[in-house]
Amino acid sequence: MDLFDEPFPDVSTYEDFHTIDWLREKSRDTDRHRKIASRSKESFWEFTKSLLDAWSGWVVMLLIGLLSGTLAGVIDLAVDWMTDLKEGVCLSALWYSHEQCCWTSNETTFDDRDKCPQWQTWSELMTGHAEGAGAYVLNYFLYVLWALFFAFLAVSLVRVFAPYACGSGIPEIKTILSGFIIRGYLGKWTLLIKTVTLVLAVSSGLSLGKEGPLVHVACCCGNLFSSLFSKYSKNEGKRREVLSAAAAAGVSVAFGAPIGGVLFSLEEVSYYFPLKTLWRSFFAALVAAFTLRSINPFGNNRLVLFYVEYHTPWYMAELVPFILLGVFGGTTRLGRYPVLEVIAVTAITAVVAFPNPYTRRSTSQLISELFNDCGPLDSSRLCDYVNDPNMTRPVDDIPDRPAGPGVYTAIWQLALALIFKIVVTIFTFGIKVPSGLFIPSMAVGAIAGRIMGIAVEQMAYHHHDWIIFKKWCRPGADCVTPGLYAMVGAAACLGGVTRMTVSLVVIMFELTGGLEYIVPLMAAAVTSKWVGDAFGREGIYEAHIQLNGYPFLDTKDEFTHRTLAADVMHPRRGEPPLAVLTQDGTTVEDVEELIKETDYNGFPVVVSRKSERLIGFVQRRDLTLAIKNARQKQEGVVSNSVVYFTEEMPLLPPSCPQPLKLRCILNLSPFTVTDHTPMETVVDIFRKLGLRQCLVTRSGRLLGIITKKDVLRHMAQMMNQDPDSIMFN
Amino acid sequence: MDLFDEPFPDVSTYEDFHTIDWLREKSRDTDRHRKIASRSKESFWEFTKSLLDAWSGWVVMLLIGLLSGTLAGVIDLAVDWMTDLKEGVCLSALWYSHEQCCWTSNETTFDDRDKCPQWQTWSELMTGHAEGAGAYVLNYFLYVLWALFFAFLAVSLVRVFAPYACGSGIPEIKTILSGFIIRGYLGKWTLLIKTVTLVLAVSSGLSLGKEGPLVHVACCCGNLFSSLFSKYSKNEGKRREVLSAAAAAGVSVAFGAPIGGVLFSLEEVSYYFPLKTLWRSFFAALVAAFTLRSINPFGNNRLVLFYVEYHTPWYMAELVPFILLGVFGGTTRLGRYPVLEVIAVTAITAVVAFPNPYTRRSTSQLISELFNDCGPLDSSRLCDYVNDPNMTRPVDDIPDRPAGPGVYTAIWQLALALIFKIVVTIFTFGIKVPSGLFIPSMAVGAIAGRIMGIAVEQMAYHHHDWIIFKKWCRPGADCVTPGLYAMVGAAACLGGVTRMTVSLVVIMFELTGGLEYIVPLMAAAVTSKWVGDAFGREGIYEAHIQLNGYPFLDTKDEFTHRTLAADVMHPRRGEPPLAVLTQDGTTVEDVEELIKETDYNGFPVVVSRKSERLIGFVQRRDLTLAIKNARQKQEGVVSNSVVYFTEEMPLLPPSCPQPLKLRCILNLSPFTVTDHTPMETVVDIFRKLGLRQCLVTRSGRLLGIITKKDVLRHMAQMMNQDPDSIMFN
Repeated sequence: MDLFDEPFPDVSTYEDFHTIDWLREKSRDTDRHRKIASRSKESFWEFTKSLLDAWSGWVVMLLIGLLSGTLAGVIDLAVDWMTDLKEGVCLSALWYSHEQCCWTSNETTFDDRDKCPQWQTWSELMTGHAEGAGAYVLNYFLYVLWALFFAFLAVSLVRVFAPYACGSGIPEIKTILSGFIIRGYLGKWTLLIKTVTLVLAVSSGLSLGKEGPLVHVACCCGNLFSSLFSKYSKNEGKRREVLSAAAAAGVSVAFGAPIGGVLFSLEEVSYYFPLKTLWRSFFAALVAAFTLRSINPFGNNRLVLFYVEYHTPWYMAELVPFILLGVFGGTTRLGRYPVLEVIAVTAITAVVAFPNPYTRRSTSQLISELFNDCGPLDSSRLCDYVNDPNMTRPVDDIPDRPAGPGVYTAIWQLALALIFKIVVTIFTFGIKVPSGLFIPSMAVGAIAGRIMGIAVEQMAYHHHDWIIFKKWCRPGADCVTPGLYAMVGAAACLGGVTRMTVSLVVIMFELTGGLEYIVPLMAAAVTSKWVGDAFGREGIYEAHIQLNGYPFLDTKDEFTHRTLAADVMHPRRGEPPLAVLTQDGTTVEDVEELIKETDYNGFPVVVSRKSERLIGFVQRRDLTLAIKNARQKQEGVVSNSVVYFTEEMPLLPPSCPQPLKLRCILNLSPFTVTDHTPMETVVDIFRKLGLRQCLVTRSGRLLGIITKKDVLRHMAQMMNQDPDSIMFN
Repeated sequence: MDLFDEPFPDVSTYEDFHTIDWLREKSRDTDRHRKIASRSKESFWEFTKSLLDAWSGWVVMLLIGLLSGTLAGVIDLAVDWMTDLKEGVCLSALWYSHEQCCWTSNETTFDDRDKCPQWQTWSELMTGHAEGAGAYVLNYFLYVLWALFFAFLAVSLVRVFAPYACGSGIPEIKTILSGFIIRGYLGKWTLLIKTVTLVLAVSSGLSLGKEGPLVHVACCCGNLFSSLFSKYSKNEGKRREVLSAAAAAGVSVAFGAPIGGVLFSLEEVSYYFPLKTLWRSFFAALVAAFTLRSINPFGNNRLVLFYVEYHTPWYMAELVPFILLGVFGGTTRLGRYPVLEVIAVTAITAVVAFPNPYTRRSTSQLISELFNDCGPLDSSRLCDYVNDPNMTRPVDDIPDRPAGPGVYTAIWQLALALIFKIVVTIFTFGIKVPSGLFIPSMAVGAIAGRIMGIAVEQMAYHHHDWIIFKKWCRPGADCVTPGLYAMVGAAACLGGVTRMTVSLVVIMFELTGGLEYIVPLMAAAVTSKWVGDAFGREGIYEAHIQLNGYPFLDTKDEFTHRTLAADVMHPRRGEPPLAVLTQDGTTVEDVEELIKETDYNGFPVVVSRKSERLIGFVQRRDLTLAIKNARQKQEGVVSNSVVYFTEEMPLLPPSCPQPLKLRCILNLSPFTVTDHTPMETVVDIFRKLGLRQCLVTRSGRLLGIITKKDVLRHMAQMMNQDPDSIMFN
């Protein structure tokens, strides 16, 4: 068992950038399975082997969970450290991040959590001055320099060692899971380089998240471990079951949301998701989350990334702003622009980001602060409200208060940060480093939500006699939680970009622990989906797949045109007739000629050219191999030997050359439809059974063939003719 | 639009207890859709109509959500009131339950929440004595009497008005969703009677839950509203999409768990669940939960049924008892016995239940108490720990304490309650009233879990020097939460009975708000599934479906035998040949003869009996109707008129009777497989495409036919031959 084998060791089966045949893979697996089951009765050893085989799926899941959880933990720790490295260094221990550094310091009081003597900014270390214009400029300069260095390293590593490591990887994984082969996309090099460059890219402060790339990393782990077991390494269908579960594990560790991960894999990524895979994904996601929790990179013993606790329920009337946030989310267009140069983007990002406190910090920290409900001990600017000195209230129940100057400053800075984030995210998505869209989209939504939340809160405070506020906002009561608006805004924006619904809500509430707020989250998610659909745009992943021209047969849009199989099949009128073999009338030479002249993946076999009765389908690969083998090993097989696909051989006169029997490589159950079959049914069959091709017959006569690419081409053509049709789905 | 029409107004299409043809329904819908889309360009009015049609799905979802939420709220309130009616009555307002009665009373102190002058037990009311042996006996007697009265009323109503209203309904709904027709099962009478009798059955104190029946009630609502729109009422396939979403809404209101509801519908109930239905279900579940929240039957403004808050994290070592609970859950066999008499069961239940405080109260109250973490103010017996008088600690952080006498009493009573619940639930499931298994299974698991939790807690307290406890249980620390064990036990037992996994965990954590405890819940759910599977038993719903012999093609178990389509198709060797029609050689009389002599659902049409080339398939129903119509309306069609299925008619001599053209009713794209197709592929095709029948050909010649029932029969046969084969899935 060589771990560092080719990622797809079963080289023989499919070629690169080709589509697999799901039905064939499935029946191969059943054969294997049957063989093991029958052998298991022979001896105790065989029985043990069969048990091991039955459990190998769970073992693979366990390994995937462990490795992807560990990698996610390591990435989290490394990102923390390197992000802070841009600003300064911990003198007591170089490998400590700012927070860890000051956490271990005894001299820190609660107010000065962020300041401790061990942590020194670069200017302090170099010039001895922590304040002043000179120190600011020096820190600024070094911040930009570090960012450029990280970005340069990331882009160089990707370019030299693993070009497949760039981007989020989710569109490609979707395509691979739908049955496409992209060799090396999930290989060990991609795994290694993506892990390293992800840390660099996130630390450089570019507007990107680690969530999408983590899904790719987890899928690489899945591919790595599935190559350990022949059950998975030799069967492209079974391998994809493992990859679906690995995607769930990836989201599970990206957000600390195991259930959300399973749902994301089901709703967004996977193509063929049987219930067995649901259970396995569930297990892998659980192990991964558990591993991450043991590593405990956030230091809070929690699975969740942004833990919040709100003390106020939400009110019916608030659904209006929530739905508005949904509309905002549905109209955002992030990540729509093509490649720009990494260094330029990093430079601009770093230069613009440094002065604004909300863009300087890491995006997850920003989101975390935006979600936060202002407690009495919060000293951040966003929580700078004017307190009533006469009031003593328990910690949980702080009434609405007028905003102080800090809040107004924060709002301006947030508004600038919003514009900056939108612009920079658009240009960042598509650059050649590992980059996810989840966290940047959430940040955009969270900023918008928080601003709206503060606006509603202040409106309710100053105008609590207005009818809409009268019912639920008495003076001195706690009635609007701006943090909740930020959360809803983040969900809406993420939903608008990716067009997730159920998995989005589950991830959001696993992420925030905000179980009470399902209804606002759902309202925002559904609204943003509706608005997004009304604009007639698909999600970012589908857009990306189309842009790259991958042969992805989407299960989401329906085909509603009135065309028939006869309109799509080849050969069309005027084209040369279909290349077929007859069951007993072709010589080896003819077959070789046919293989040379055409590049089809396979050939139908008919009784005779006259009757055109179909008896089976033979793969080009099998045919080439069989003839080559026979020529080398089988005596008497020459160019004018006749190839027989029949069950019984005719008695041949001794003068004839030795015939070649090829029934064993003939697929006797090719998939057929009649020429009158509506294309919607054909599309359905291709989708649900995962076919590569389908033969078209009329009253038992072979007429033509439809391949997956024909189907895709026809669908695209029909869509262009009548773009309105989407609306009515 | 008549609301009180037959539940399946499109009588013509399918007969009762027949299977629908999914592909046909789908293509009918696309036709409809195309018609509307092309008409919409004609006028503004048609355009509006097309928009309305496109939105009708969401409207139906809204209506389902509203009605099922309302019904659930009304049921909750009525059950509360009637359960308390068995013990006494509220004098200030007869329609108040015990809690509401004392809630409105001003004279109640916090300690005596349960006692207030307005609430009088029956003995108080009748004899004036609240205490003493006489009062106890009188209360006991009236408790049993009320229970018998409710049960009698419930069973009579079910028997007389709606026999389909009994049981949980989930197995039948699963079967219906898989494409079976059971007329009246989701009718308005079933809806009405099931709602009323559910209240009666739950109030009678029988060991049953309202959750399963609520799913049935919601599906009835779905059926009711889908008959308002011809898009759904006239298409059995589309109708099932609505029903899938309605099932989600049902679970959503049953537990206050909208996401869990969607997942339950996906994992457990639905057969065909496209992403569009996922979104719709999500919306319906949201509206339903929201409606229920507005009605607020639990008076706590929460969606969740059993809200808990634990203050202690869980520890790795605790996974061992959690997994043990999973094993317990996986081995429980609840609800496996057939019908017994309702009255006898009620009498026994009531007589045995009254003396034990844990069985007297309603099962949800019991579960709620078992899940509860003992706070400093809890005065229940389960929280009777010995307090250290010297200790002052904040409310949140009560250390482990030795158990007081109350706890030991409680454990004995709980142990008895456990045995009682197991026995009585086995006999209750199957009686002829609406009955769900969720709450009783959860109760059994919760009791077992709480007992184990207290045992672990006391062991940890008394032996905190043992190695296993050393790491996490110092004296004076809070380290074991017995309530969490109850929660995990409930999940394990429910998982063992229904074999749910992901949806179970989601429901449990929506139910309890215990987000932190996903990992223990997952561990228990996965263990109980493994153990259950190792015992080779299927979930309760599948068992029920098999018992009733419904034609349900389960998507969960795989078919791994080596049989071919040729082994399953009819006619077999020795059977009379297949009943076929020829495209131009049959007279009207012959056809009528064939229809009379056979009871097949349809007939293949071939070119000629000699060539056996298949050209199409004609439905029996269509054929009968067409001939009847032609005989009545078409002049010249007589018994020896020739029936033509060809495209063009031959020129007939004038002496021949008028021919009958029937190409319009011919399905020109019947589904075919070759006789060499492995049965696993055939099973897959039947499952994924939802076929009713499939024709078998060999090199273009028609050989036979395979129907869904043939497939099911063959699968059952193969399973019996080799029962081991399940193990290796």
